[in-house]
Amino acid sequence: MIPVKGYAAQDPQTDLAPWSFERREVGPHDVQFDILFCGVCHSDLHQIKNDWFPGIFPMVPGHEIVGRVVKVGDHVKNFKVGDLAGTGCMVDSCQVCENCKQDLEQYCLEGSTLTYNSYERDGKTPTYGGYSNSIVVREEFVLHISEKLDLAATAPLLCAGITTYSPLRHWQVGKGHKLAVLGLGGLGHMAVKFGVAFGADVTVLSTSPGKEADAKKLGAHHFVVTTDPEQLKAAQGSYDFILDTVSAEHDFNMYLGLLRTNGVHICVGVPPKPAAVAAFSLIGGRKSLAGSSIGGIAETQEMLDFCAEHDIVSDIEIIDIKNITESYKRMLKGDVRYRFVIDMSTL
Amino acid sequence: MIPVKGYAAQDPQTDLAPWSFERREVGPHDVQFDILFCGVCHSDLHQIKNDWFPGIFPMVPGHEIVGRVVKVGDHVKNFKVGDLAGTGCMVDSCQVCENCKQDLEQYCLEGSTLTYNSYERDGKTPTYGGYSNSIVVREEFVLHISEKLDLAATAPLLCAGITTYSPLRHWQVGKGHKLAVLGLGGLGHMAVKFGVAFGADVTVLSTSPGKEADAKKLGAHHFVVTTDPEQLKAAQGSYDFILDTVSAEHDFNMYLGLLRTNGVHICVGVPPKPAAVAAFSLIGGRKSLAGSSIGGIAETQEMLDFCAEHDIVSDIEIIDIKNITESYKRMLKGDVRYRFVIDMSTL
Repeated sequence: MIPVKGYAAQDPQTDLAPWSFERREVGPHDVQFDILFCGVCHSDLHQIKNDWFPGIFPMVPGHEIVGRVVKVGDHVKNFKVGDLAGTGCMVDSCQVCENCKQDLEQYCLEGSTLTYNSYERDGKTPTYGGYSNSIVVREEFVLHISEKLDLAATAPLLCAGITTYSPLRHWQVGKGHKLAVLGLGGLGHMAVKFGVAFGADVTVLSTSPGKEADAKKLGAHHFVVTTDPEQLKAAQGSYDFILDTVSAEHDFNMYLGLLRTNGVHICVGVPPKPAAVAAFSLIGGRKSLAGSSIGGIAETQEMLDFCAEHDIVSDIEIIDIKNITESYKRMLKGDVRYRFVIDMSTL
Repeated sequence: MIPVKGYAAQDPQTDLAPWSFERREVGPHDVQFDILFCGVCHSDLHQIKNDWFPGIFPMVPGHEIVGRVVKVGDHVKNFKVGDLAGTGCMVDSCQVCENCKQDLEQYCLEGSTLTYNSYERDGKTPTYGGYSNSIVVREEFVLHISEKLDLAATAPLLCAGITTYSPLRHWQVGKGHKLAVLGLGGLGHMAVKFGVAFGADVTVLSTSPGKEADAKKLGAHHFVVTTDPEQLKAAQGSYDFILDTVSAEHDFNMYLGLLRTNGVHICVGVPPKPAAVAAFSLIGGRKSLAGSSIGGIAETQEMLDFCAEHDIVSDIEIIDIKNITESYKRMLKGDVRYRFVIDMSTL
């Protein structure tokens, strides 16, 4: 076994703190890489606090992981020692179901193995995430990271990036479409960058007038303050797509009213409670309320390659892992532009 | 003005009763036809009872209207006296907005003029529906009805037919798809017929085991009793589409669980209250909850022609208009297979 240092939550009531644990030896199909940076996702906090479902403790969060390969198994073909490597939200899946065969491992019918707060395929070995100094992952779930991009700023692409890239690609959002991005946080700011890169006319919908300058700096063409009745009225029936990155409670019916006929409201954030949806909000205008979860491995690589080609990374603030709890507090207040990334050398 | 006899609700508390009123003279672009049959839609009852919104009284319901042309305006090109004719849920729209121009008058951006409980384009003249002996409609909103089909059984195609035909066509449901039809009433039984005609593998989802034989008789290939935990479990992740015709409260999350990855749950019924939808129900499997409203005029004609070609009509029970209130009571109990149609000669 490989000894590893990390930060873990021992239970939902206790702050993250240093914790030593072990990872499996590098098997013939495994890649081990030393973690250089790990993004801080809002879902890390949801999970250590049991907001969605009871977690597996001790829990080492982190699924926006980049680093450098230090060891590869005998049968590994696509990675060698010294390569940059990344891992996102998944480290395994059944690989044989119809979804896995179609590169949709995120919808694996047996359930994919998540990078942390999950069990390996044996159903009993817990997985531990990227708030740690090294990780062992089977080759198929390791991504290539370009040397051209700022490495720390690449980390959030593994979750915030693919979570917004995938639905925009699936619904073929691009030139001629009006895209509204709801919520300007870790996911939202990536949605703006991708929407602009794909040629869509991008509007940021926000309750905070103060975010307008930032939205425009990120490339958004328009900004609508949804708490202003005049602006909201003018935006009725405007958008082909709304990409909804908000994980707090909000009124879907209000936003469905902003869609054009045949419009699609795509949820990638997970509010804590089910939301009330009126049938008339959907029927009047043949609208859809849809959801999308991260992306498959092949699509994640495609996204990383697209980012390298178009020089797209996340806007980040690098933190010392000792400040993780304070960073969570700032994240809850929306006080981050737009993603904290842990510099793992501080571990 | 043209004197007309009909049945009206004077207010939401009072049963329908005979009422005489007037319709406009036949204008240059109008068609007048004597109503021979009118289907009884559940929405007739919702509207006279103000279930959805305050109605316009006196209200003459009925939007599944067929009859024979008795007069045409000077500029009418496509109808002549003696032709069969029909009118569904709309009698007008702005005809110039982007939706109207795309034959989506049901989504007219100015709001289409409904056949009853609505105002003409002048914004003040109430419209009166098909529980009456004659109607005047502008030519563009009059449909051709084939002489080949049973006329009374054709009436429900104008609402129940197009409401189910349109979404199945829009989402291109057909060969290779598994379609579940939720609710086996006026709309549901038409959804089964169309789903089968389009080549889909059709399942009826029902809470009533007693409906299985009927479902099979209509052409359904499978039947699932959703109150049976074993059957429900076996149906998890099964369907590409659910066509949801239920207008009573029900649990969308339960049905979303029956969809396959990328599955679409299409609402055509309108439950009285907004329903709670969990984001995880959509995100896990990239699912959509969508809505669809009737169909455009061109598509309604296409549907009627398709029905004539494939010998598809509604299963009906013909009633005397004097029994309308009793028929509503039976409809509420689900005691009709599958649509009441008023024989207007009983007026």
